[in-house]
Amino acid sequence: MARNKHPEETVNLILDTAFRLFLQNGYERTSIQDIVDNLGGLSKGAIYHHFKSKEDILAAVTDRMTRESNQMLLDIRDRADLTGQEKLKLIFKTALDRPVQDQLFMIAPEFSRNPQMLYAVLRETIDDAAPHYIQPIIEQGIADGSIKTDCPAELAELIMLAANIWMNPLMFNSTVEQSRRKFMLFRQMTRGFGLDILDDSLMDRLSDLAQLYQDHK
Amino acid sequence: MARNKHPEETVNLILDTAFRLFLQNGYERTSIQDIVDNLGGLSKGAIYHHFKSKEDILAAVTDRMTRESNQMLLDIRDRADLTGQEKLKLIFKTALDRPVQDQLFMIAPEFSRNPQMLYAVLRETIDDAAPHYIQPIIEQGIADGSIKTDCPAELAELIMLAANIWMNPLMFNSTVEQSRRKFMLFRQMTRGFGLDILDDSLMDRLSDLAQLYQDHK
Repeated sequence: MARNKHPEETVNLILDTAFRLFLQNGYERTSIQDIVDNLGGLSKGAIYHHFKSKEDILAAVTDRMTRESNQMLLDIRDRADLTGQEKLKLIFKTALDRPVQDQLFMIAPEFSRNPQMLYAVLRETIDDAAPHYIQPIIEQGIADGSIKTDCPAELAELIMLAANIWMNPLMFNSTVEQSRRKFMLFRQMTRGFGLDILDDSLMDRLSDLAQLYQDHK
Repeated sequence: MARNKHPEETVNLILDTAFRLFLQNGYERTSIQDIVDNLGGLSKGAIYHHFKSKEDILAAVTDRMTRESNQMLLDIRDRADLTGQEKLKLIFKTALDRPVQDQLFMIAPEFSRNPQMLYAVLRETIDDAAPHYIQPIIEQGIADGSIKTDCPAELAELIMLAANIWMNPLMFNSTVEQSRRKFMLFRQMTRGFGLDILDDSLMDRLSDLAQLYQDHK
């Protein structure tokens, strides 16, 4: 069978098809059967050979979507011309501005009702984003004097949990108004930590994403 | 069958037995079969008639443990002799000091590895603790001038997510040292919101609970 000779082509076909259907109809309204029906003869068994569940397909789709833009975050982390605090500011702006965010909010998976998916984001935040992107930047900030804290690892976690999960309209199904208030509190929180990294344009961008989610869910 | 005549007695017997075994051997090392073996002839089917899973039993055990002490929190919320800020301070102290906390940390369930259990705590925090205990107190604080914020609902959520989940050694498997650093950051965060509600004795209590968890998990 073709899928055994070229498994990566099969995986890509499944992901391309799923991505197109998720964007068209939304994640919640797309079934595994819908994906099978659009695979041009590939069987349901072939899908389950590569993916345990629809959630598993979504995880692979979003991984592929964000892999490229994560490279931008890495590049910012490793730049030599910015202070730690400037990098944090740029990383928040860049992360929110990525066009891939619009697609994700249009796919509109209901994380807030799905323990497995919410848990995956939580673990990704704690096990990857905080220690590999944010903590090193905070440590650079301590060294260059732009950030003051005795707890870089914990500050990275707290900021990322608040930003990635609590403030993310996708995770908590927040309305536009709730998202704006969460943003204002999050900014107050980061200022309390001596960080001035969030300007008003980010609040508008967050509102737009919240609106996009409310329109598509 | 007796369990049909007196279902609440059966449920209590299951919960008493599970609680005793959880405390003795830890949650992770207790199986449903262990509970059956200690029920004096009650069948596994009788357990599954009342509970879907071991996690379900744990949820019922902890509900029963915390129901009584939650009444204390309600009483604090409704007192007429304290400002909103004083109530927040008292509620954190009371919640941490409850003897039931020691039992919970000795039972030592590994929330950090269990999506369903972590999700249940997250939902309880967002759907119950924040809106029913903390938000009304913050609103009292705004009215009496002891708390300043434009976003009482969101402030309640952010504080409770940080306290109940991120700072809780049970949820994130934190060491004593990590717990102390998280406490210091959490205090800095609440001070940034104009709240002076956490004193050093709470940090020591949190360390003791973290140690209890590390000893029993």
